[in-house]
Amino acid sequence: MEEILEQAQRNSVYAYNAGLLAIKMFIVAFSTGFVREKEKVVINPEDAKILKVTDLSNEEHPAVARVKRAHLNDLENIPIFLIISLMWVNTAPDIVECHVLMWLYTFVRYVHTAVYAYYPVPQPARGICFITGVLITLYMIIRNFIYYADFF
Amino acid sequence: MEEILEQAQRNSVYAYNAGLLAIKMFIVAFSTGFVREKEKVVINPEDAKILKVTDLSNEEHPAVARVKRAHLNDLENIPIFLIISLMWVNTAPDIVECHVLMWLYTFVRYVHTAVYAYYPVPQPARGICFITGVLITLYMIIRNFIYYADFF
Amino acid sequence: MEEILEQAQRNSVYAYNAGLLAIKMFIVAFSTGFVREKEKVVINPEDAKILKVTDLSNEEHPAVARVKRAHLNDLENIPIFLIISLMWVNTAPDIVECHVLMWLYTFVRYVHTAVYAYYPVPQPARGICFITGVLITLYMIIRNFIYYADFF
Repeated sequence: MEEILEQAQRNSVYAYNAGLLAIKMFIVAFSTGFVREKEKVVINPEDAKILKVTDLSNEEHPAVARVKRAHLNDLENIPIFLIISLMWVNTAPDIVECHVLMWLYTFVRYVHTAVYAYYPVPQPARGICFITGVLITLYMIIRNFIYYADFF
Repeated sequence: MEEILEQAQRNSVYAYNAGLLAIKMFIVAFSTGFVREKEKVVINPEDAKILKVTDLSNEEHPAVARVKRAHLNDLENIPIFLIISLMWVNTAPDIVECHVLMWLYTFVRYVHTAVYAYYPVPQPARGICFITGVLITLYMIIRNFIYYADFF
Repeated sequence: MEEILEQAQRNSVYAYNAGLLAIKMFIVAFSTGFVREKEKVVINPEDAKILKVTDLSNEEHPAVARVKRAHLNDLENIPIFLIISLMWVNTAPDIVECHVLMWLYTFVRYVHTAVYAYYPVPQPARGICFITGVLITLYMIIRNFIYYADFF
């Protein structure tokens, strides 16, 4: 019984972090639109008609491109993390460890987006956030390998 | 027993929608190739040799770039939706609600791709599809938060 | 009992392949940085200060762009495969089939990256890898459809 409650707690940590990471990605997605409107640069002709813009080059405005790079970095990291960590939270990890790693991941990804898309700061701020996220994912992968080695 | 059958039904709704969304993404992926061949524009030198094209600029042709933007929008939305909705269908939501939200999501993403990549129509058609998908995902996130709040 | 052990084995096959595919994506992500440093091309001003580069055009260097296209192709295929195959390994597929399809997928994606990002070879090497991955995913989607048709 206690075991079932512990697993429900791990699932809840997962659900909260997955939700917060998804919300962060939506914020970045929408801010692409806001930056585009502010800078009056669009790519799709049907959007241009609304904003009364004539520049339809294939090239993005630097400010829009920066937000998009931040978004792409999310795409490269967050879905794969959510799949790996879904496996991991089902390998009965320590509850405290589960809380620490999941919340730390969400925290570094929020900071990564802030310093990439909105308030560019000198490196290595962005690099540290990125590496921390990768290391947490790699740690979970190795823990999964160890856990599942017995069933192989 | 009835509960197990109900969960199997929710899983089946999930499996069908996940499959249809994946198939849609593959259609977009392949149509990039078709548009590229039709417009005779390639980026990789090894592809150029086959199509006998000499333009190897880093820049994409507008028609190819449009399909790629539609594809990128899928990548920004669909994998994260499939993770969030996987959690959600396991929180015992109402069967009818489960059907409505999952099928509606798949429908708006199919329409989004159609009006983005293939038959550009005046906005806000594309915007409405995008927002509907985001709102469904946000609703599921909040429902997950409420469901898992008890186990936190 | 045997059934539970069989499912644990399927889960272990899934966990190992998910881990290896995630590691491959991280290798590609980091090699973008290495190529960028080697070619001395950056896009973000804050990165330029470290590498003492002045070219801040919105345009990527061809060598960097090639690695990024390989990475984007991963993003278009791997997360969606990991979601579809997670459903599939839970539909009690044959153990041997499970091993063959999961390891073959990981193998073709590793080869795809090698011939796309690092050692460009004449087509259709890359195309065959890509198609094989898509066909494996489509096969699993159809198997999921058949399995879940009973519960619909």
